[in-house]
Amino acid sequence: MHKFRSHTCADLRKANVGDIVRLSGWVHRVRDHGGILFIDLRDHYGVTQVLADPDSPVFADVEKVRSEWVIRIDGKVLARDETLVNSKLPTGEIEVFIQDMEVLGAADELPLMVFGEQEYPEETRLRYRYLDLRREKMQENMKLRSDVVASMRKRMWDKGFREYQTPIITASSPEGARDFLVPSRLHPGKFYALPQAPQQFKQLLMVSGFDKYFQIAPCFRDEDPRSDRSPTDFYQLDMEMSFVEQQDIFDTIGPVLQGVFDEFADGRKVDAYADWPQISYRDSALWYGTDKPDLRNPIKMQDVSEHFRGSGFAIFAKLLEQEGTEVRAIPAPKGGSRKFCDRMNAFAQKEGLPGMGYIFWRDRKPARMLRFKEFLTMTFEEIEEHDPAYSKELLAEGAERIKTAASAGDSERAEFLFDAYFGPHEAAGPLAKNIGPERTEAIRQQLGLGVGDAAFFLGGKPKAFQRVAGLARDVIWDETPKDPEDENWRARFAFAWIVDFPIYEQDEETGEIDFEHNPFSMPQGGLEALEGDPLNVLGYQYDLACNGAEILSGAIRNHKLEIMFKAFEIAGYDEAEVRRRFGGMAGAFHYGAPPHGGCAAGIDRIVMLLAEEDNIREVMLFPMTQRAEDLMMGAPSVPDNAQLRELHLRVIEPEA
Amino acid sequence: MHKFRSHTCADLRKANVGDIVRLSGWVHRVRDHGGILFIDLRDHYGVTQVLADPDSPVFADVEKVRSEWVIRIDGKVLARDETLVNSKLPTGEIEVFIQDMEVLGAADELPLMVFGEQEYPEETRLRYRYLDLRREKMQENMKLRSDVVASMRKRMWDKGFREYQTPIITASSPEGARDFLVPSRLHPGKFYALPQAPQQFKQLLMVSGFDKYFQIAPCFRDEDPRSDRSPTDFYQLDMEMSFVEQQDIFDTIGPVLQGVFDEFADGRKVDAYADWPQISYRDSALWYGTDKPDLRNPIKMQDVSEHFRGSGFAIFAKLLEQEGTEVRAIPAPKGGSRKFCDRMNAFAQKEGLPGMGYIFWRDRKPARMLRFKEFLTMTFEEIEEHDPAYSKELLAEGAERIKTAASAGDSERAEFLFDAYFGPHEAAGPLAKNIGPERTEAIRQQLGLGVGDAAFFLGGKPKAFQRVAGLARDVIWDETPKDPEDENWRARFAFAWIVDFPIYEQDEETGEIDFEHNPFSMPQGGLEALEGDPLNVLGYQYDLACNGAEILSGAIRNHKLEIMFKAFEIAGYDEAEVRRRFGGMAGAFHYGAPPHGGCAAGIDRIVMLLAEEDNIREVMLFPMTQRAEDLMMGAPSVPDNAQLRELHLRVIEPEA
Repeated sequence: MHKFRSHTCADLRKANVGDIVRLSGWVHRVRDHGGILFIDLRDHYGVTQVLADPDSPVFADVEKVRSEWVIRIDGKVLARDETLVNSKLPTGEIEVFIQDMEVLGAADELPLMVFGEQEYPEETRLRYRYLDLRREKMQENMKLRSDVVASMRKRMWDKGFREYQTPIITASSPEGARDFLVPSRLHPGKFYALPQAPQQFKQLLMVSGFDKYFQIAPCFRDEDPRSDRSPTDFYQLDMEMSFVEQQDIFDTIGPVLQGVFDEFADGRKVDAYADWPQISYRDSALWYGTDKPDLRNPIKMQDVSEHFRGSGFAIFAKLLEQEGTEVRAIPAPKGGSRKFCDRMNAFAQKEGLPGMGYIFWRDRKPARMLRFKEFLTMTFEEIEEHDPAYSKELLAEGAERIKTAASAGDSERAEFLFDAYFGPHEAAGPLAKNIGPERTEAIRQQLGLGVGDAAFFLGGKPKAFQRVAGLARDVIWDETPKDPEDENWRARFAFAWIVDFPIYEQDEETGEIDFEHNPFSMPQGGLEALEGDPLNVLGYQYDLACNGAEILSGAIRNHKLEIMFKAFEIAGYDEAEVRRRFGGMAGAFHYGAPPHGGCAAGIDRIVMLLAEEDNIREVMLFPMTQRAEDLMMGAPSVPDNAQLRELHLRVIEPEA
Repeated sequence: MHKFRSHTCADLRKANVGDIVRLSGWVHRVRDHGGILFIDLRDHYGVTQVLADPDSPVFADVEKVRSEWVIRIDGKVLARDETLVNSKLPTGEIEVFIQDMEVLGAADELPLMVFGEQEYPEETRLRYRYLDLRREKMQENMKLRSDVVASMRKRMWDKGFREYQTPIITASSPEGARDFLVPSRLHPGKFYALPQAPQQFKQLLMVSGFDKYFQIAPCFRDEDPRSDRSPTDFYQLDMEMSFVEQQDIFDTIGPVLQGVFDEFADGRKVDAYADWPQISYRDSALWYGTDKPDLRNPIKMQDVSEHFRGSGFAIFAKLLEQEGTEVRAIPAPKGGSRKFCDRMNAFAQKEGLPGMGYIFWRDRKPARMLRFKEFLTMTFEEIEEHDPAYSKELLAEGAERIKTAASAGDSERAEFLFDAYFGPHEAAGPLAKNIGPERTEAIRQQLGLGVGDAAFFLGGKPKAFQRVAGLARDVIWDETPKDPEDENWRARFAFAWIVDFPIYEQDEETGEIDFEHNPFSMPQGGLEALEGDPLNVLGYQYDLACNGAEILSGAIRNHKLEIMFKAFEIAGYDEAEVRRRFGGMAGAFHYGAPPHGGCAAGIDRIVMLLAEEDNIREVMLFPMTQRAEDLMMGAPSVPDNAQLRELHLRVIEPEA
């Protein structure tokens, strides 16, 4: 028999009853039932109940074991009494009577229990990560991560890609974030850097003729603390192809990612790749207030500036006189109550805006309602008599305008005005009063809302309110009542390509032009486009959003030196600077560069989505704390003086 | 039609004749045959011949293209004339007549030609690596590397292993080599380190209950220059398993590696895993002079000390009076010529030894030969008469000893002596004369040699001559004539497990005891073994050798704290020091550690064997120079002062 196990702790079934078996694993839980000791013995694969009573030759030894000891037992498989079968456990029909036992690894008192659901502070979990990782949820998350990565690899191979490993100790390459530097021992005063991404190398691979590259690539950025990212490193599914256009990249990576999500969706709906919309950066900002929209939420914002221009709502009317401003509406189906509208207004204020105007629609009381045809035949007094509570002023105004339109033969306008003043949708809220029934009705019709619905309004420069608008959109969807078919809306992976990113952005304060995204993207329209207004230049540059997270980013690259130098010149970098910073690539483009493009998908993020975790540390084996410390390994630490001397370095004590 | 290609440059066949196609690729070669321009158009997949004559609408453009320009052509597939078919090329039956052409990427004059076999200095190749990588051999090597790694992954998955990524930015962990350090920005004066190997992490994974781990793991060591290794990083197939013994590891990884070699052997013989011998470290040193023997070479050295003890060869006889000395023979079948023996003697001298004694055997001239039965009936005079050239002294001595033995009834000894003095194998060389026929014949019989063979002898402390003995063994095999079945001996992958490594070694000068290999291995015999002479303690520690290279190293780990502390104590590290250096692991072993073990296989080395390359830079994409510089990317480089300030560092100028 094998020295440690004949079976894993997940293997034994009713068919094994009577077998003599050997199991090894951790003592998950010990229970004493009237002198019989029951142990849940756990390994990576499952749990098996083993037991001993005073008849067992090793009963005295079994009495000594404690949680998380590693033991080896020999024993006989017994069928459980039918009433004691545990149907939740694959091994639940049997138990093993212990005949021999060996302690393979004892355990001190535990700082963190593996059994049970107790919560521990993150510091405890990271310091004793080897215990934390034994917990079922962590085992599942780590297996999921491993399986997701394996699935990605298989799918990329199936698409004809090979994985190539690019250097990890390389040159500093300023791409936006901060490099980790590595001092060189052989070259005093010089440093290597860890790659922020294999961007240059993958492009060099294309210039080297490799045609299709991918890599599960570690990326290193010396980031400031933030809960949803690692302060040191993260992993990408990085890929690049030659002789392709943007759509080729989508058609390659899209099915790969859909396949990965399908494989691990576990009953959740995955939008089919063929249905993933391509939304321009501009539209995404307008509709969703973000370039990573959550399309599980069907709400689409709209520009309603025209309805407020010169209106009686002075705040918006004045605002719209300034250049670059607009008013946007967030429709809120089923959000039509004053209580909800006030809650959303407070939300906007909490997020730093002055508030959100709103309108909501309710049933016009049937008593007040008229029919259009009937209305046209009525005198003013008859109308007033029909609904004595209705504002006399509005009644007079409405009646006059409707009749004027009707008598001018514009029956369409007459009907619209009738709806605005006397139709079935009664608008409520101060904003509606300020702009009057006609504009209010026009807004309602544009947004396609009805009784019971609401709309929220934000005005100003979009950059100033867009983020909050996007958040409000999510809160609105989250908190309004759902149709039955939408109730399970969270159990879905909804994707959207975001395309046509601008190449440049302008700093609001300095007015300087800089790259919006990635300096290596090909501008749409090539060199010619760069001759015009840089802020109008769009790139062949794209993201993929899933459920509100950016899970992929990529571009068709700028492989032509003259366009590359021109693009950098606009952002204020002369040719010499570009050659200094990106020398490898700039050099290579002199010797026959093919058109190429690619993307990188965020593995940590994808696993977080699949595992439904918000904290990246739940999907990493041995993460750093937010302060970039490894509490278990004791990193970073103070080096020996000899090490510093060899590296020609001296530490400068920070000023107190 | 796709913007860049309807087919790759490897796709077109006779069946495509008449098709209008689009191809993109690099101009491999241009030839002008009487006004017709032939271009070998190359992409990652192959080469297609395309051509233009003055009838082509773009002839003038085609005339301008030069080597390594990237072009897109549209054209019509034509059948080649039967006399012009190139059977070496999959596309050799067709060519494409160019109707349209676009330059996708022009090229300056090349510092390195892609076409042809011209050799370039390594500096040129590394500086223009993107050109060097386009060459056929480099493309093949990189594809091979990628495919080998993919094959390893698939095979490990098939064995039930999952890949887990361990941290790259972590704690310094002194394991013999020098760490690369990474200064921490957030923690002034503290440094991270890049892992020399994931040793601690994989053991922590076992303690975390993951049971089966593997990783294609980058390992970082700040190495001094050496041609067969990277000065910065290398890759391992790293694996670890719980609840296993040494043989379980072999039975897991052995078939994986055999499978990988089988897959890429390309006609070369791969020894079946079941036939890989397990050779103790001690035997390997004796038989092969190394712990990474090349078993394609069947020569086995032997200890022949007994034959020289008290012999007439004073050098060895005296040597053997010192403790720890021995004399070893290297058999050299078919090496029996004075010329070859002198060459080998010179080789040993070149390697720093005083020389190698030798004996070689030739036919005793038939005229001199006697038959044993006949001999016993002859008088001394008759014998002398039979061969007047034979040494009278030896003749007298031999005749006397043989007859004495025969008359004492010891016919076995009499026959042996007869063989030694008058048998068919005449020993030549000064050494044979010094030790006399009896000892010489005993050596011949022990080594199993015959006429035409030789043996070489080295004496002293094995450590002093062993390395050269091993080299001599290889030279001997390499340079001696082969039987027909051995002529193709190089085209084979021969494996050997080397087992039973000693845990400790003693420094010759200081007498201090230190770890021989890896401090984490379980000593055979456990704690008890550590109570005796440490130099006698063997470990559950092993290597796998293939064709003279170490391609794998591993151990069953020491998972018991008390044994671990004792093992370190013997090597001079107290408990506090162990906890300081290996705190993560020492901490974890307090909380239920399973027995576990594993190994790491060197990927660069395996690819080098398969590609038959001696220089590691031939199997890496973007290697550093031996001086640890990346000439293409310009690494390492001088950082900005702001970067150094952020890291709280100052560079100390080295003294002139």
